[in-house]
Amino acid sequence: MVGYQRYLDRVPLRSGQRRFGSDNKVEAERARHALSLAESGRRVCVVSSGDPGIFAMASAVLESVDQGPEVWRSLDIRIVPGVSAMQAVAARIGAPLGHDFCVLSLSDRLKPWEVIVKRLHAVASADFALAIYNPISSERKWQLAEAQAILAGYRGPETPVVLARAVGRSDEKIMITDLGRFDPGLADMQTLILVGSSTTRSLALSDHREMIYTPRTYGV
Amino acid sequence: MVGYQRYLDRVPLRSGQRRFGSDNKVEAERARHALSLAESGRRVCVVSSGDPGIFAMASAVLESVDQGPEVWRSLDIRIVPGVSAMQAVAARIGAPLGHDFCVLSLSDRLKPWEVIVKRLHAVASADFALAIYNPISSERKWQLAEAQAILAGYRGPETPVVLARAVGRSDEKIMITDLGRFDPGLADMQTLILVGSSTTRSLALSDHREMIYTPRTYGV
Repeated sequence: MVGYQRYLDRVPLRSGQRRFGSDNKVEAERARHALSLAESGRRVCVVSSGDPGIFAMASAVLESVDQGPEVWRSLDIRIVPGVSAMQAVAARIGAPLGHDFCVLSLSDRLKPWEVIVKRLHAVASADFALAIYNPISSERKWQLAEAQAILAGYRGPETPVVLARAVGRSDEKIMITDLGRFDPGLADMQTLILVGSSTTRSLALSDHREMIYTPRTYGV
Repeated sequence: MVGYQRYLDRVPLRSGQRRFGSDNKVEAERARHALSLAESGRRVCVVSSGDPGIFAMASAVLESVDQGPEVWRSLDIRIVPGVSAMQAVAARIGAPLGHDFCVLSLSDRLKPWEVIVKRLHAVASADFALAIYNPISSERKWQLAEAQAILAGYRGPETPVVLARAVGRSDEKIMITDLGRFDPGLADMQTLILVGSSTTRSLALSDHREMIYTPRTYGV
């Protein structure tokens, strides 16, 4: 098993298995290591959290095959889908992704910030709900506030916003707020953020509980 | 258990359980039926395919609570996330959703066609990959060809397109094509369509196999 050490630690180890843990930022190196082990005849599992096909290891592995030795193209690579963070968060608080939505990483480590800005304007002007991955990191502090400002140029301050961390784990933390009150300083690299469209609503339940959902109908 | 009859048929029945099947188009009626059963003290499960939070029953249930009698707000409603069709398809053929993407229903049953057109232009101009749900139905024949024309105004004919149906079932059918050659007549209401961004690539494997993936990097 190859993966980010923190994720590997959550997988029970069976006899005959070996773990190769790594740091979180070396996806390509990790992918090449996994492919080399597979080339040497081992059965290898690359461990991701969430869905490996959504901002996770599947693309890194296929990129490495594309750029790697010819023999890697004969490996039997299978991708097992999963529940991505946006889905786990959405299910916990309602159905904010029940209508059209977009999924955007705010990290400018692998793409220019101008591309992210353009995409934020497109998402906001066409009134999609939005799931934001990688909103902030120790080296990137200001991007989330700028994203908030761009979205606020199109949507009202009452637009629901959800900040969530470690969903499904014992230290799970979910906060429902709105675009006007939302404090970007409360997010970190592991926070998943959902921003509603103009039709996304808060539903008041008994006992002061609240759910957020986007209706299936739009403008009819 | 309440749900579309075809989905209910796939769930094994345990003793003490009852099934209430319905037609595919009566989501709101089905949701209200489930809530009435729950109000009367039963434990009710609303069955969806894929992820109930993505173009499925979670929004319909919460809409019905919002519009229904006060007592429904005291029900203990839990949503269990799942693997949506776009993820099952993506995993089967690679990692086309490995970078920023949008998710759009092409059905104008619940929103005006003008909104869909605006969203297609936004998605295409900002170069998102795209997952299309409900591309066509017996009453809606022309929308998918118009969507194809809009996307082709921004992206080259070689842009990868994937048409998939019944993924994970015995009658699974997946076709990899491209924006230029893609024939909308091959899709039906149960087809999930993935359209690559400008960076989405085809990866030729041995034995004439092919995978589609979107690299993690963009324009750097």
